[in-house]
Amino acid sequence: FAKEIYEGNEYAGVVTGLAWTAMGGTILYVETSVSKGKGELTLTGNLGDVMKESATLALQYLRSNSDLLNMKAEDFDKIKVHLHVPEGAVPKDGPSAGITIATAIASGLTKRKVRNKLAMTGEITLRGKVLPVGGIKEKILAAKRAGIKDVILSSDNKKDVAEIKEMYLKGLNFHYVDTVADVLNIALLKTKAK
Amino acid sequence: FAKEIYEGNEYAGVVTGLAWTAMGGTILYVETSVSKGKGELTLTGNLGDVMKESATLALQYLRSNSDLLNMKAEDFDKIKVHLHVPEGAVPKDGPSAGITIATAIASGLTKRKVRNKLAMTGEITLRGKVLPVGGIKEKILAAKRAGIKDVILSSDNKKDVAEIKEMYLKGLNFHYVDTVADVLNIALLKTKAK
Amino acid sequence: FAKEIYEGNEYAGVVTGLAWTAMGGTILYVETSVSKGKGELTLTGNLGDVMKESATLALQYLRSNSDLLNMKAEDFDKIKVHLHVPEGAVPKDGPSAGITIATAIASGLTKRKVRNKLAMTGEITLRGKVLPVGGIKEKILAAKRAGIKDVILSSDNKKDVAEIKEMYLKGLNFHYVDTVADVLNIALLKTKAK
Amino acid sequence: FAKEIYEGNEYAGVVTGLAWTAMGGTILYVETSVSKGKGELTLTGNLGDVMKESATLALQYLRSNSDLLNMKAEDFDKIKVHLHVPEGAVPKDGPSAGITIATAIASGLTKRKVRNKLAMTGEITLRGKVLPVGGIKEKILAAKRAGIKDVILSSDNKKDVAEIKEMYLKGLNFHYVDTVADVLNIALLKTKAK
Amino acid sequence: FAKEIYEGNEYAGVVTGLAWTAMGGTILYVETSVSKGKGELTLTGNLGDVMKESATLALQYLRSNSDLLNMKAEDFDKIKVHLHVPEGAVPKDGPSAGITIATAIASGLTKRKVRNKLAMTGEITLRGKVLPVGGIKEKILAAKRAGIKDVILSSDNKKDVAEIKEMYLKGLNFHYVDTVADVLNIALLKTKAK
Amino acid sequence: FAKEIYEGNEYAGVVTGLAWTAMGGTILYVETSVSKGKGELTLTGNLGDVMKESATLALQYLRSNSDLLNMKAEDFDKIKVHLHVPEGAVPKDGPSAGITIATAIASGLTKRKVRNKLAMTGEITLRGKVLPVGGIKEKILAAKRAGIKDVILSSDNKKDVAEIKEMYLKGLNFHYVDTVADVLNIALLKTKAK
Ligand SMILES: [Ca+2]
Ligand SMILES: [Ca+2]
Ligand SMILES: [Ca+2]
Ligand SMILES: [Ca+2]
Ligand SMILES: [Ca+2]
Ligand SMILES: [Ca+2]
Ligand SMILES: [Ca+2]
Ligand SMILES: [Ca+2]
Ligand SMILES: [Ca+2]
Ligand SMILES: [Ca+2]
Ligand SMILES: [Ca+2]
Ligand SMILES: [Ca+2]
Repeated sequence: FAKEIYEGNEYAGVVTGLAWTAMGGTILYVETSVSKGKGELTLTGNLGDVMKESATLALQYLRSNSDLLNMKAEDFDKIKVHLHVPEGAVPKDGPSAGITIATAIASGLTKRKVRNKLAMTGEITLRGKVLPVGGIKEKILAAKRAGIKDVILSSDNKKDVAEIKEMYLKGLNFHYVDTVADVLNIALLKTKAK
Repeated sequence: FAKEIYEGNEYAGVVTGLAWTAMGGTILYVETSVSKGKGELTLTGNLGDVMKESATLALQYLRSNSDLLNMKAEDFDKIKVHLHVPEGAVPKDGPSAGITIATAIASGLTKRKVRNKLAMTGEITLRGKVLPVGGIKEKILAAKRAGIKDVILSSDNKKDVAEIKEMYLKGLNFHYVDTVADVLNIALLKTKAK
Repeated sequence: FAKEIYEGNEYAGVVTGLAWTAMGGTILYVETSVSKGKGELTLTGNLGDVMKESATLALQYLRSNSDLLNMKAEDFDKIKVHLHVPEGAVPKDGPSAGITIATAIASGLTKRKVRNKLAMTGEITLRGKVLPVGGIKEKILAAKRAGIKDVILSSDNKKDVAEIKEMYLKGLNFHYVDTVADVLNIALLKTKAK
Repeated sequence: FAKEIYEGNEYAGVVTGLAWTAMGGTILYVETSVSKGKGELTLTGNLGDVMKESATLALQYLRSNSDLLNMKAEDFDKIKVHLHVPEGAVPKDGPSAGITIATAIASGLTKRKVRNKLAMTGEITLRGKVLPVGGIKEKILAAKRAGIKDVILSSDNKKDVAEIKEMYLKGLNFHYVDTVADVLNIALLKTKAK
Repeated sequence: FAKEIYEGNEYAGVVTGLAWTAMGGTILYVETSVSKGKGELTLTGNLGDVMKESATLALQYLRSNSDLLNMKAEDFDKIKVHLHVPEGAVPKDGPSAGITIATAIASGLTKRKVRNKLAMTGEITLRGKVLPVGGIKEKILAAKRAGIKDVILSSDNKKDVAEIKEMYLKGLNFHYVDTVADVLNIALLKTKAK
Repeated sequence: FAKEIYEGNEYAGVVTGLAWTAMGGTILYVETSVSKGKGELTLTGNLGDVMKESATLALQYLRSNSDLLNMKAEDFDKIKVHLHVPEGAVPKDGPSAGITIATAIASGLTKRKVRNKLAMTGEITLRGKVLPVGGIKEKILAAKRAGIKDVILSSDNKKDVAEIKEMYLKGLNFHYVDTVADVLNIALLKTKAK
C-alpha cells in the first residue's frame, strides 16, 4: 500500500478501512461503482475468498434491510455492483473489512457522502451484527498517521482500545457499534456526492 | 470463535448449533436471509464441501416436505436463501450442523421464532433422518458455558450422553429425535419474529 | 458408516446397497428426492467422480427406457432428481452402487415401494447391462449382519458366491441379473409409498 | 476390463473397439444413448481429455456430414448424445477410439445395427481422415480372443499388420480405410435395431 | 518482446504502454477490438489475474464515466470488447498497464486516434485515480530507445523521475496525471482513425 | 506427428502450418468445420492456452475485418466454428500457428480453396499484424521434406531465412507478410471447394 494519507470524502461509494498487514497497520480504500444490471457483484483488487464472502454478505444484508437505505429489495435486481480495493498487486483477505464494504456499497447505492476523516474496521454477519477483529493497536496507529479523526469499531473491541496508551489515542474519536445499522447511521451523511 | 455466550432468539432464521473444534466444543450460529429469487442457495462462512452439502440437503428436504412449513414446493422456486456461519475467517466443515441448518432455513422461510436458549447438533439425510454425530461431551460442556437450556440430539447419541457425569448435565434438558420433523416441532415457536 | 442395520422400506426412493470399504463390507442407503425441475441431477454425500458418473448413467438409462416405469422420456425434462448417500463425512466412490442408484431413482420417480430386506450391488452400463463388482464375500457378510434376506448381483458374480462357504450364505436369497430391467422387476413392488 | 468376449450387435449405438492397456490389448464397448435435447454431449466412463476431444470431434464431423446419415445438420440441435465406455472404474484416454466413437454415435442416431463381430481402432480428424494408431499387434490378438471376425484399421496401419505372423491373423478379415465415411459404409447395416 | 520500436498511431484502440521485465524495461502494445455484443470482455495475451482485473476495472470506470466519451452507460451493454497484449507467448501481469488499457478501450470505443509517439504507465482505481508504479527508470530508458516523445505518469511518480539523470530524460516530455480523465484528455485526439 | 507429407488442398478449412518440436520441424494441419450456431468457438487437438488464445484472436480479427471475406460482422453470431489440430495425443502450444489458424477459419467460412502446396507460420495480433516466430530453419527443412512449394513468413523473419544455406531453400518460394490481410490474399484462391 503506497499511500497512507486520508484522501477526503469527495466520492460516494468510497470508504476508508483499517487493515493489518505483516508490515503493521495501514488504511485502505474500498471503492464501489454501481450501474444498471441484474444483481451482479464484481470484485477486484486481489481479494481472497474470505474477503469476497464479506462482500457477498454485505450486499445480501443491505438487500434484506433495504429500508435502511430508503430502497426496495427489488431495486437490487436492477443493478450491478463493482467493488474494488486498491492496490491491485497487493493480495488482501480476511473478514475485517466487512463494515467498510457494507458502508461503501450503501454509499454507492444512495450517493450519500461518507463522514469526513472517518475510518472503520469490523466483521459483519448476515443478520447485521458487527464482530470484533484483531490488530486494533496497529490499525489505530495507522489511522492517526493517515489523518483520521473518527474510528468505528465493534463494541467487543472496546477492551482492546482500553489497553492502548492514552497518547496514541489523542485526537481520535471512537464509535463503538453492535450492528451495521449503527455503522451506517454514523458513517453516511445526508448530503449527496456530485 | 470469539463469542461463546448465547445471544437470544430475536431474529428469525438464526439458530444456535454445537460444534467440536481442535480447541474443544463451542456454540456457533447459523444465520439465514431469505429474499426473492429463483431457487438459489448462497453459502458463506468459509464452509467446507461436506457442510455445503448439508445445506443443499436441508433445502431439498424442506422443499419436498414443504407441508411441514405450510408452504408449497413451488414457493421454493421464487426465493433465494443465503446461509452464513460466522466467523468468516474460521474454516468449518462436517455434517453435524445439518439439523441446525435445516432449522435455520425453516425459521428464515416462515419467520417463526426459534425456542429460546436452544442448541442442537445432528446430521441430516435426504429422507429426513437425524444421524448421530461425534464430540457430544465437548459440545454439551460448551452448551452449558454458553447458557443453553435445551439441547436437541439424535436418538442414536443417547448412549453418548449416558456416559457423561450427572453434574455436567445438570440444568440441561435433552430432546432426542429421529427425524427433522421432530426437530422442527421442538425448535420452532408459533410466534413470528419482527 | 455408523449404522449397519436394515431400516425398512417405508420410503420410496431409498434403496439399500452393499459397499466394500477398508473396514470390510457394509450396507449403505441411496436416497432420492424428486421434485419439479428442468432435468437437473443433484448429488450429495461426498461422492467421487466414478460414483457421480454412475448416477448420470442411471438417470439417462431410465430416461431412454422410460417405458419400464410407465413414463415418457419428456417427463424427465420436468423434474429435478436429488440423490444422497449418507453419511456425509464418508468419501464414497466406485461404480458398484450403479444398480442401487438406478433402483433408487426409479422408486423415487414412481413412488413404488422397494422389496423389503433387499440389498444389491452391481455396475450399470448405458445400455442397461449389469457388470460384476468386487468384494462380494465382504458385502454378503455385511448383508447378513444387517438383516438382509434378498440380494441382487450380476450373473457374472455367481462364481464369486460359489467360492463362499455354505454357512455364510444361509438365510440369503440370491437374484442373479443381466440387465437393469431385471433389477427393477425384482426390486420394485406394485404398492406405492405414502 | 472384466469381459473380453464379443457380445453381439443387438443394440444400436454400441460398437466394439480395440484398446491397448498396460496389461496388453483388449476389446471395449462404446455405448451411446440419444434422446431429445439441445445439442448436448454427455461423456461418462472415466475418460481422459484426449478421448473426450475425440467424442467432440466425432459429433461435429457427423453434424457437418449429416447427409452420410440421411440427416440434416439442424437435427443435431434437437438431440442429446450420451456416450459411455464401461467399465466405470477404469481410466481411459487417447485418440484411438475415434472411429469407434463416431460409429457408435452414427448407429445411435440412425438406429442402424452394427455389423456382427466387428471391431475397430483408429483416430479421426475433423475433416474425417482416419489416422493410424499404436498397439496394433496387441489389439489384433485381443480381437481374436474375443471372437471378432472383421477389423477396421487405418490404411496407414497396414504396415503394422504386415509385421505380424500369419497364424495370428488367421480368421480375421481386415478393412483398411482412409475416411470416416469408409468406416460407416463398412460398419453400419441397413437393418435397424429394435 | 521482440519489437522495441514505436509503431505509429494508425489504428484506433491500440495504445503503447511501458512495462518492466526481468530483462529491463520495454514498450508493449495494448490492442482492443470492439464489436456488437452483450457487454462481454475478452482478454488474451497470456495475462495474469491482476492484469485481467485492471481490464475489468478500466471497462467499469469508462461505463460509469461514459460522458467522458460522449457515450451512454447503456451503450456498454451492446458491445463486446476484446483486449489483446502481444506477444502471446510472454506471460504478463501486474497493475501498471491500467491506464494504457483504459486508453486503449476508450480509443477503441470512440475510434479517436491516440497521440503520436505517446507511451504511458500507471495503475487505475475504480474511482479513476492513477496510482504510481515501479520500474520508472527502466521504463523511461525503454521509451527513449523506442522513439517515444511523450510519457504519461502518475503525479506520485514525479519523485522517481527526479532521481534520473538529465541526459536520460532529454527529448522526452512528461505528463503527470492524477485521474484517468487527465490521461484521456492528453492521449486521445479529436481525429478518428479509418 | 505421424505424417510429414503434404496432403493437398481438396478441403476448404484445412491449412498447412509449420511447427517446431523437440524432434525438429514438422508440418501440421489446422482443420476447421463451420456450422450454424451462436458464435461459439470449439477447440480440440490437445491445445495449450496460448494456442487457444491464437484461435480466439483469429476469430475476432476476422469478425472485425469481415469485409475481407465479403461477410458481415453479424454473420459471425450465427455460426459455430470448430477448429482441430491433429494428432489428438500430441500436446501443442505457442502462438506460431496464428496465421495458419486465421487462414483455416477464413477458408472454412468462405469455402474458398487454399493455394496448393502452401505452408505458413507466424503469430497474429488483434489488429492483424504478423509477428516473427522462432525455429525458422527447422520449419523450412520440414516444409521441403513434406513437398511444400510456397511458404508464408513474417517480414521480420526475413533475417532468419537469410542465415540459411542456399541449398536448403532451393525449390521454395517465400512470401513475406506484415498483415493477416496479406496472408489471406496469398493463401485463399477464388475457387471454392466442393
Ligand atoms: Ca505501490
Ligand atoms: Ca477494515
Ligand atoms: Ca474472532
Ligand atoms: Ca451443530
Ligand atoms: Ca458416523
Ligand atoms: Ca452397492
Ligand atoms: Ca471389473
Ligand atoms: Ca479403439
Ligand atoms: Ca518473440
Ligand atoms: Ca504500462
Ligand atoms: Ca501418431
Ligand atoms: Ca504454424
